[in-house]
Order: sequence, then C-alpha cells, then structure tokens
Amino acid sequence: MTRRRYLVLAPDRFAIDAKTAHGVIRYGADDVVAVVDPSCAGRRVCDVLPHLRSEAPIVASVAEALPLKPTALLIGTAPRGGALPPSWRQDILTAIAARLEIVSGLHDMLDDDLEFHAAAMRSGATIWDVRKPPDVPIFSGAAYDVAAPILLTVGNDCAIGKMSVALEIVDAARDAGKTNPRFVPTGQTGIMIAGWGISVDRVVADFAPGAAEQLVLYAAHEGADLIVVEGQGAINHPAYAPVTLALMFGSAADALVLVCDPRRRHIEEYATPALGYRALIDLHEALLATVKPAPVIGIALNTRGLSDDEARAEIARAKTETGLPADDVVRFGAAGFYKDVAPRIVKRPQLGSHV
Amino acid sequence: MTRRRYLVLAPDRFAIDAKTAHGVIRYGADDVVAVVDPSCAGRRVCDVLPHLRSEAPIVASVAEALPLKPTALLIGTAPRGGALPPSWRQDILTAIAARLEIVSGLHDMLDDDLEFHAAAMRSGATIWDVRKPPDVPIFSGAAYDVAAPILLTVGNDCAIGKMSVALEIVDAARDAGKTNPRFVPTGQTGIMIAGWGISVDRVVADFAPGAAEQLVLYAAHEGADLIVVEGQGAINHPAYAPVTLALMFGSAADALVLVCDPRRRHIEEYATPALGYRALIDLHEALLATVKPAPVIGIALNTRGLSDDEARAEIARAKTETGLPADDVVRFGAAGFYKDVAPRIVKRPQLGSHV
Repeated sequence: MTRRRYLVLAPDRFAIDAKTAHGVIRYGADDVVAVVDPSCAGRRVCDVLPHLRSEAPIVASVAEALPLKPTALLIGTAPRGGALPPSWRQDILTAIAARLEIVSGLHDMLDDDLEFHAAAMRSGATIWDVRKPPDVPIFSGAAYDVAAPILLTVGNDCAIGKMSVALEIVDAARDAGKTNPRFVPTGQTGIMIAGWGISVDRVVADFAPGAAEQLVLYAAHEGADLIVVEGQGAINHPAYAPVTLALMFGSAADALVLVCDPRRRHIEEYATPALGYRALIDLHEALLATVKPAPVIGIALNTRGLSDDEARAEIARAKTETGLPADDVVRFGAAGFYKDVAPRIVKRPQLGSHV
Repeated sequence: MTRRRYLVLAPDRFAIDAKTAHGVIRYGADDVVAVVDPSCAGRRVCDVLPHLRSEAPIVASVAEALPLKPTALLIGTAPRGGALPPSWRQDILTAIAARLEIVSGLHDMLDDDLEFHAAAMRSGATIWDVRKPPDVPIFSGAAYDVAAPILLTVGNDCAIGKMSVALEIVDAARDAGKTNPRFVPTGQTGIMIAGWGISVDRVVADFAPGAAEQLVLYAAHEGADLIVVEGQGAINHPAYAPVTLALMFGSAADALVLVCDPRRRHIEEYATPALGYRALIDLHEALLATVKPAPVIGIALNTRGLSDDEARAEIARAKTETGLPADDVVRFGAAGFYKDVAPRIVKRPQLGSHV
C-alpha cells in the first residue's frame, strides 16, 4: 500500500479544534506534507502545536502547496454551521483539478455535491467520503470464532480519547512483542488514520453490530494477533448509547479498557450526570454478562488540564477505587499500562455456545 | 382522516405466518375488505383464522377484489427469499393501475422499483414504503418535558408480542377512562395499524433515539393523556439490542411493561440465553437509572402454546418471582392488568435536570 502524501485542509481552525487534522498528524500511517490554514500561514505545525511533533509547513491555500506534491487532500475539520464556505469550495476544486484524492469525514457527502462530482469525473480524481458506510450484514456471531483477543475502549463521555487510547495500546503492544496488533477504526478520524474502517454511527441501527463484527473479521483476516477496537459514545449517553452498545456486542470484545476524563460532570450538552469508575464498570460488565462476559481490565485517564501532580493523584485514586491498572497513556506513555493489563487480555467464550 | 379500505396481499402465507396481515386485521384502524391468497381463496378470514374475527373474503387475485372498492393494497407478508415473485408483481401493478394506494413494509422499497414508480406516476397512485424513515434530529431531551406519562414495552426476545401488548394496554386504558391514550408505532406492522410512525430499526444509529423522541413528541402534540410506545428487540439481543436501548433512552419512558414468552430458551437463532424475569428487570432498570430512572411495573406474558391451566400457573410464577402484576393480556384481556399497573404509571424526572 502506497502511503498518501496528505495536504490537510483546516482553515481558521487548525490551532484550535481541528481534531481530525491533529489525529491524522499524530497517529496517521500516511505522511502530511502541509496544512492549509490562512490564519497561521508561514509557520510550521510544531510552532503552533508542539505535541504533534511535525515540521510540515502551514500555507494559505491548496494552490500554494501543490509544489510539495501532495497526493490527497484531507478535510481536517468541519465548517462552522455545516455549510461549506466559498473559500473551502475553491480549495477543494483546486485539489480535484490537480487530481488529488479527496478524503472527507464531513456529514455531507462531497461526492453527492454535483460540482465536486462533475469536477472529479473530469480530472479523474477520486472522492472518499469516509462516513459513507458500506452495506454490511446483520451480526452473525462469526466474530466469536476470531482467535485473536479483542479489546474495546469505552468511556465516560464522547471526545475524551477513546481513539487515542486504542492507538497507544496498539503501539505499546507492538513494542512489547506482539507481531501484528491491529487498531480497528469505527469513526471518521480513526478511519483516516488507519486508511480503512466504518463510521458505525452512520450505519442503520439494525446493522450497527454487524458493522462492528465485519471490522473485527477484517482485522482477523489480516492476521492480527491483538485487535483493539475504537469505542464511541458512552453507555449512558442519551443519544449515542446505542452505538456504544452496538460496539460492545458487535465486536465480541474479550476485555474493555475504560477511558475517563475525570473532570466531566455530565454527558456533553445533556443534564445526564457522568458516571464514576465503579458504576461504569458494573454497567458495562452487567450488559456483556448477558451475551459474552468480558471484564474491564484497566482505566485510561485523560488528565488534560491537570498538573502532573494532580494527574498522578487522580490515577492513584482510580487504582484504589477499582483495584485495576490505571494511567494516562497519552501523557505518560502506554508501555507500563500495557504491561499491567496484558495478562488480563484473554479469549473468552460467548454464553450458550453449546446450545 | 378517511379510513382506508384495505385489500391485503398475502399469497400462500395468509393462514401461516403473515404477521403484518394478522396485526392489521386484528388491531388496525382501517377496514379490510378482502385478502388475496390463492391458497385459501373462496373462504373467509374467520374460516381460516377465527381469532381475527373478520368476515372479509379471501380471493385469488387483486383483479378479483376490485369490485369491493378497496382504496389501498397492503403488502401483508414478505416474499420467501426476498425477491418479488412474478405473480406478486402483477397483482401490485393491477392495484397501481386501479389507483390504489400501495402500503408496503418490505425491506426493499417499492417506490425505488422503476416499474412500480413509473406505473404510479402514470395512474396517480401513491406508494408508501412504511420502513423508509423520515429525516429526524439527534435526541434533544425535549421528550423529558412531555406531560403525559410514557410507557414502553420491552421483552425477552423479538416477535413475542410487544406490539400487541402495547395495543391492548391502550384499549384497556381507554375503557378505564383515559380520554386519549395513544399507541406509538416503531415498526412496520405497528405503523400500518396506526397509520403513522417510524421504523426505528431503519434509522441511522446516531439518530435512533431521536426518532423515538420525535414519535413521543408527536403523540404529545396530538393531545395524548397516556403514551404507550411499542418496543423492539431485546436488551441482550446480539444484533438488535441497540434499537431496544434507543427506544429506552429516546422515548424518555416513565415506566416499562416487560413482555415475556416463557418458553424462549435463547434469543432467536443465536446461542445467547433468554433472561429470566428478575435479570431482565434489573438490567433495564440499571440502564435507565443512569439517565432517567423508570421501573418495570408489570409482566405481560405470551402463553401461546400453553393450556389455560399451564398459562395461569406461569402467570402465578411471574407474580411470585417479581412481586409485580402479571397476566397474558392478549389471552385473558387487559382490563385487570391495566387496573393493577395504572397506579404505577407516574411521571418521573430525568437525572440532573437542574444542572
């Protein structure tokens, strides 16, 4: 597989909240040759966001970056309010004319836009709307027969790092001697990072566990010796809990890692209180106990916004309250955490498998 | 609203398993003027299935039934194997040419079939694919402000009577003095019975709770003084549990009625064991306790296949094991059950509503 040379489009948002751009730069298998954001043009990525450790230049337009020979344009953020501003449209059309692959995680499918579709037909560029799910079958139970252990990240809310934790665990597992640990992407940023996957939240509800199962089967087919599935939502999220449950049952998980931002008081914009460690462990394990019992084997904390001392105190509290390994694997590295949880990652049988 | 005069298409299956046809004949607000099934042509519905209490004639073709002046053709069963047999196609085209409304709950959308679509354009017939969901917003929490109490049926598996129980409870509530109790349909048969609704299992996963919420808001807008939501799937169904959870959170239920077929040993074709009364109550209540606490207030048993004595023994066992009202409301009537559960149907607040 040839690596893409990405040009990342993130106008006016790169330094602020371009989550997809940041994820792909930090964790992506592809190269990033430049970022398009007029508001920080002339600087490098590492000047603006040192933790991304990239020296790629930031430029003002797609046209300006073409001499760097990108092969693909990645839409690295969503436009405020949803509709594409005219300047974005021009940048995307310039990329299509230059025959760059267009990779978009926007809700609106770019390939359904007549102007983009027609321009791509003319130039021969392809448009990959990563949120558009393929047709998948109903969950069959085939995932129960996968030989590799299956780990799933779950959490106390959205946007707290379930994808990053999954990626860090895969890296740590490789460093610890696994030959082919695989990250399984279930949302648009994860898909862009890995270059494959299904946006499970965009699948018709009846088929969402089937989508999770197909992803696990694909990783198994690729010879994975550890499968780490990116979680979504939260089990008590009033709107997204069904997707969380689809991943829990559909991935046929053998074990869960619980990702928590301890500062969350309630679920996103809802009044629903965020749950504590013990309540989250009990609820996930009670649900899985009815289909394929699997334990929570560790707590991955997101201590962003806390000092080092505060972070270590919170990690200690999580360990004491749950009796499980705990750490912030993004902040302090995943090697120690992986070493602690690895003995707990074992294959488990579904219930009633001899019916 | 003018009542439809339905012609029900159920070739070769009417006497066997035409679940949609049976539901619409037994519970539907519209009239059924005839059934098309060559295998029992010449008899009446009550000759073949006495419990449906209908004297509508069974005929061999749509053409034969047109003198009865039907206004709509209801596809009352699904073709074996999925693809439409040629004889069905001819019957549907005859109905379209006669300008009957075509009402279909098939997975494949009839209005996407070029021949049907073109024929309907010519004759002016409309095609209503009831499984095709409308666009709905993400769950907002507006359902928490609905004044009428909201009841949801849940169960120990699919196809055990969650819809029938909801319909029987609505009838019993009306008989007991409620002025406007409303059934909320969430699947194709329920939609055909009520003439509105959303097939929640066909909604994109992220939007499924939002679909349930919109249905509840619609019932409230229509002035309901009791809202009874048709449940789907089962909370430990490996494939359909996400839809079950979407209805639990999205409907903002104040109370649940647990529908159980006590003879189920496992979930449909999966190895997953069916849960007992207590386990089902605990799991549903534990989930709802994290968002909007709501209790299970009664057990509605499906005792099909048991003798009267066996049925009464099972009902007694359910009462003893759970301490809740229990009955088979389809077999023995819902009046007594409703009287027992009515005091337990009270409005409840969401968690954290003063955040």
